[in-house]
Amino acid sequence: MARLVLKFGGTSVANIERIRNAAVHVKRAVEAGHEVAVVVSAMSGVTNQLVAWVNEISKFYDPREYDAVVATGEQVTSGLMALTLQEMGLKARSWQGWQIPLRTDATHSKARIEGIDTDVLSAALAAGEVAVVAGFQGVAEDARVTTLGRGGSDTSAVALAAALKAVRCDIYTDVDGVYTCDPRIVPKARKLDKITYEEMLEMASLGAKVLQTRSVELAMNHRVRVQVLSSFEDKPGTLVVDEEEIVEKQVVSGIAYSRDEAKVTLTKVADRPGVAAAIFGPLADAAINVDMIVQNISDDRKATDLTFTVGKADLDRCVKLLGEQKASLGYAELKPDPNVVKVSVIGVGMRSHAGVALAMFRTLAEKGINIQVISTSEIKISVLIGAEYLELALRALHTAYGLDAA
Amino acid sequence: MARLVLKFGGTSVANIERIRNAAVHVKRAVEAGHEVAVVVSAMSGVTNQLVAWVNEISKFYDPREYDAVVATGEQVTSGLMALTLQEMGLKARSWQGWQIPLRTDATHSKARIEGIDTDVLSAALAAGEVAVVAGFQGVAEDARVTTLGRGGSDTSAVALAAALKAVRCDIYTDVDGVYTCDPRIVPKARKLDKITYEEMLEMASLGAKVLQTRSVELAMNHRVRVQVLSSFEDKPGTLVVDEEEIVEKQVVSGIAYSRDEAKVTLTKVADRPGVAAAIFGPLADAAINVDMIVQNISDDRKATDLTFTVGKADLDRCVKLLGEQKASLGYAELKPDPNVVKVSVIGVGMRSHAGVALAMFRTLAEKGINIQVISTSEIKISVLIGAEYLELALRALHTAYGLDAA
Repeated sequence: MARLVLKFGGTSVANIERIRNAAVHVKRAVEAGHEVAVVVSAMSGVTNQLVAWVNEISKFYDPREYDAVVATGEQVTSGLMALTLQEMGLKARSWQGWQIPLRTDATHSKARIEGIDTDVLSAALAAGEVAVVAGFQGVAEDARVTTLGRGGSDTSAVALAAALKAVRCDIYTDVDGVYTCDPRIVPKARKLDKITYEEMLEMASLGAKVLQTRSVELAMNHRVRVQVLSSFEDKPGTLVVDEEEIVEKQVVSGIAYSRDEAKVTLTKVADRPGVAAAIFGPLADAAINVDMIVQNISDDRKATDLTFTVGKADLDRCVKLLGEQKASLGYAELKPDPNVVKVSVIGVGMRSHAGVALAMFRTLAEKGINIQVISTSEIKISVLIGAEYLELALRALHTAYGLDAA
Repeated sequence: MARLVLKFGGTSVANIERIRNAAVHVKRAVEAGHEVAVVVSAMSGVTNQLVAWVNEISKFYDPREYDAVVATGEQVTSGLMALTLQEMGLKARSWQGWQIPLRTDATHSKARIEGIDTDVLSAALAAGEVAVVAGFQGVAEDARVTTLGRGGSDTSAVALAAALKAVRCDIYTDVDGVYTCDPRIVPKARKLDKITYEEMLEMASLGAKVLQTRSVELAMNHRVRVQVLSSFEDKPGTLVVDEEEIVEKQVVSGIAYSRDEAKVTLTKVADRPGVAAAIFGPLADAAINVDMIVQNISDDRKATDLTFTVGKADLDRCVKLLGEQKASLGYAELKPDPNVVKVSVIGVGMRSHAGVALAMFRTLAEKGINIQVISTSEIKISVLIGAEYLELALRALHTAYGLDAA
């Protein structure tokens, strides 16, 4: 009698017909002999309407009341799903965050889970009931409803799976798994059967939008086996698991990209200690995250060129801020460039294989693509290139690393 | 520092603009030095959407999950109202039923209030916070959300006013008070400044839809002063109060009517003991309420004609049921008639004034209106007449009892 957690995202519960479709997956799991907990998102569009009402009232709203309002979206779905399961002949019961309770800190609108009491849920599961849990929400110590922020329902599901010691957490969504690359750009992209937590984490934080970064971190920390799969098809998805579970390790498992970055170059920055702090300090104060940084030795050897990337949405603020401090920073020119993309190859196999970076540089060079900035971590290499080369680069790298579908 | 409860119905909070308008009334009460609790309904249309989803899933739904779903409508409004009040510079906090708690029995979808804990609410009010309470809902002993059924938010408001010992409960709605008669039919109808609980109760149960019967009963039992007024105008409404508070008692305070009844006549029913029970027993078993009953002596003195009224919605079921039992009941003919209306004159002054009934019969006779059935209580007289005479009867009676506006 193994326990399973099934999570359904907003598009999978967008209307009653889709809720029925999702319930079929739940029923199958129950009939296979599992104890099943279900985590549901708000019906797609509902949360946006609730947020729009709050914003219509105030731009500077009280996050406690924001949470009270937006948490209702998932509460509605949990009740509707319980009713649908009952209509199919199953025992089912809805659970709001406070009823479990799923306890969080008081950081409203982006609360962190502190613990999940499993007594009442375990009793319900043992009694043969499907526990339908409203995702995205919990309750703070002062009995106020909290929400977990964007992607919170994935986090609810993984945390619940950890607390209930579930054998797996199935995340049902509108894609059928994790791909070696975005199939809309690389037609030869393949669905991965398995991927490690570390790789999934890099993929998620580098722009693959299948799973929220936070939920992957949580799964990795608690060793929760996660499966990403489509609620609209009846086939296995991609398992996110421990590295040991993957026998045949790929050197490179996937290629991710991000269009959300912009490049900033400051020319002829004085080459003396403290300059970097003088530049990046004000950006940090303004909550502008800097991602990649490279410093080039310039011609006259008394000054250097400094290049870095920020989020595209922050570019204007960044330029304004640095422009205002031109005199004190003492650079010659400030060159913003939003026409860049970041391409990353990811794979735990890199740790034991040399030459992955070289293959990347060589492949891009062969296609005449100039690399503007490079950054690396233990299991990924990222390069910044001109936006117009994105498709060319992804397809060439996908082939070069042997990822193409047969 | 008197306490006030303000309640806003669905049309008064139908969108953000109307919530702002309602909040202005709240602000005025706070600035007048009151401690204020606000009870809100769901934004109009929201509850209907939630109910429609439940019905789309199942005709025989679990009322526990129905409650979990539909209670969210008021939760949304309570958060939005709290945010609006905050935006206006007031301290405010939303309260769902379980957070107070407002305790009910476990009769889901039509739960009865068992008690309201006032500790946390009183502390919030004492701290200068407006307490914005989600109406229509409470929590049962097993920590499940319950709803109070139709008109439940009025009941929430009156119960809260009783628990908090509020000086008054203001029910804001889309009409500006209680009228001597329906102004859409009787243009000379006047708004009443005051009406007694007993009269309001008769008005409500006889079809005047301003206040829900249950909330009036509750107000009467706890002696809560209730004011019915419009959220769209700045003028006093109608006070529902104790009889002692009304100095100049009218003999007749108002005239109500109902189009919801239908007449059934059984001819030549055997005139022997047990016949009435044989007829009305099966109707009661089928949950068909019988209102007025009259028995006429028929020509041959061995049998009588029996006439009674049932809800128009129950007429077909009633006819089918009695038709099936024609042999055992032994009547000659079954004559259903949906073309009737019930007209009632109401007034606590009737107790001490003879001649009220006579005036009614005489007025209707003068207009050539035949009275089909009569029923009376201490403070009202109801007659059943042909539906086509409704307007004529209401206007004639309104004039006859001296209720016309100057």
